[in-house]
Amino acid sequence: MKIGRVIGNIVATRKDERLVGQKLLIVRVMVPDDRGELKPLEGSEGTVVTVDLVGAGFGETVIFCTGSTARNSVGSGQAPIDGAIVGIVDTVDTY
Amino acid sequence: MKIGRVIGNIVATRKDERLVGQKLLIVRVMVPDDRGELKPLEGSEGTVVTVDLVGAGFGETVIFCTGSTARNSVGSGQAPIDGAIVGIVDTVDTY
Amino acid sequence: MKIGRVIGNIVATRKDERLVGQKLLIVRVMVPDDRGELKPLEGSEGTVVTVDLVGAGFGETVIFCTGSTARNSVGSGQAPIDGAIVGIVDTVDTY
Amino acid sequence: MKIGRVIGNIVATRKDERLVGQKLLIVRVMVPDDRGELKPLEGSEGTVVTVDLVGAGFGETVIFCTGSTARNSVGSGQAPIDGAIVGIVDTVDTY
Amino acid sequence: MKIGRVIGNIVATRKDERLVGQKLLIVRVMVPDDRGELKPLEGSEGTVVTVDLVGAGFGETVIFCTGSTARNSVGSGQAPIDGAIVGIVDTVDTY
Repeated sequence: MKIGRVIGNIVATRKDERLVGQKLLIVRVMVPDDRGELKPLEGSEGTVVTVDLVGAGFGETVIFCTGSTARNSVGSGQAPIDGAIVGIVDTVDTY
Repeated sequence: MKIGRVIGNIVATRKDERLVGQKLLIVRVMVPDDRGELKPLEGSEGTVVTVDLVGAGFGETVIFCTGSTARNSVGSGQAPIDGAIVGIVDTVDTY
Repeated sequence: MKIGRVIGNIVATRKDERLVGQKLLIVRVMVPDDRGELKPLEGSEGTVVTVDLVGAGFGETVIFCTGSTARNSVGSGQAPIDGAIVGIVDTVDTY
Repeated sequence: MKIGRVIGNIVATRKDERLVGQKLLIVRVMVPDDRGELKPLEGSEGTVVTVDLVGAGFGETVIFCTGSTARNSVGSGQAPIDGAIVGIVDTVDTY
Repeated sequence: MKIGRVIGNIVATRKDERLVGQKLLIVRVMVPDDRGELKPLEGSEGTVVTVDLVGAGFGETVIFCTGSTARNSVGSGQAPIDGAIVGIVDTVDTY
């Protein structure tokens, strides 16, 4: 999984029917710096679109998974989904 | 999923027979900047070739999935496809 | 899928027996620039080794898939293959 | 697999129920330099969140896997997990 | 698949029991430059840990696969493995 922050949402009225009813959230990947503070990740893997499984709100820090794991996490595993928020982070402790 | 923009299409007469009849669109990955405006992604993951499941047109902003999720999204899931457009974006709201 | 160009081939006499008889082609990932011309991709994902499903020749522009989709594309889907050329590009049109 | 170092942990009380009871560790990807010393990897793939299968402690050097392999490694393979620590490194020998 | 060079090995006495008996080799990803000479790949995907299916030795040039394809290549496909060496390269010919 990766750590991310919910930075927005997407409205898409025309979409694959298996996505109807899914909340689509934009997540910015976050990485802890040397002091453990989360910083947004720059570059190619920096932003993903996810389905929310846990009721995440804007600005919250989350953990999300991708690929077939995300697809399998939602309902019967048949929807065209490859990103899913699976937890809301309370604290990140680094050493 | 990722956000992208349809920037072109591919004509390929010689191809695996399981791709016959599929519209192949080139999608540039887009990422929201700090003000929420979508910018094209530079670098290694910046351009993908996708099959279109939702009738996307040139220049439209879309969401697409990749990997086994894309393959499973199309027909019986047996075609050699690892990119699929699954929605057309109306609005991207960032915070 | 990605766009690529066949830049070479690999000879490997010692290999997993499930690869025997497969033509192994080296593909350089290509991305269209702002004017639609294909440029070689620099960096970490720039070169892959693929199995050829469509009779591609050296220097040809192709589309290829990766991961489990590539594996499933070849024969019974059991060979240790994670890259496969699935089409030969006639034209790339960008807008 | 990749080499990593355990740099912290995550507390998440609200999460997918299939993650309950799993220890979530933050792993920094490490790569050997020319002299074989492990250095933290900068950039987009530099930090992952993993489930620990082998009792790893903070600061330990580990090997971990990702994607569907990680998911399949844990219990019945149904949890939304795409990173898993599968070994603790005693020595890395480079040549 | 990718081209790589075996640069070392890993000793891990504490590991998932499904990895017992597997030789764990460190592979540096190699990419051909404009003249066809193999150069080590810098950056995020530059080093992977693999299981060796073909008896590769230190310093040898190999082809390896990753992800679920690597897992499926080894025994019953149930071990937590996402990198596998599947061939030893005799020659790389580029054009």
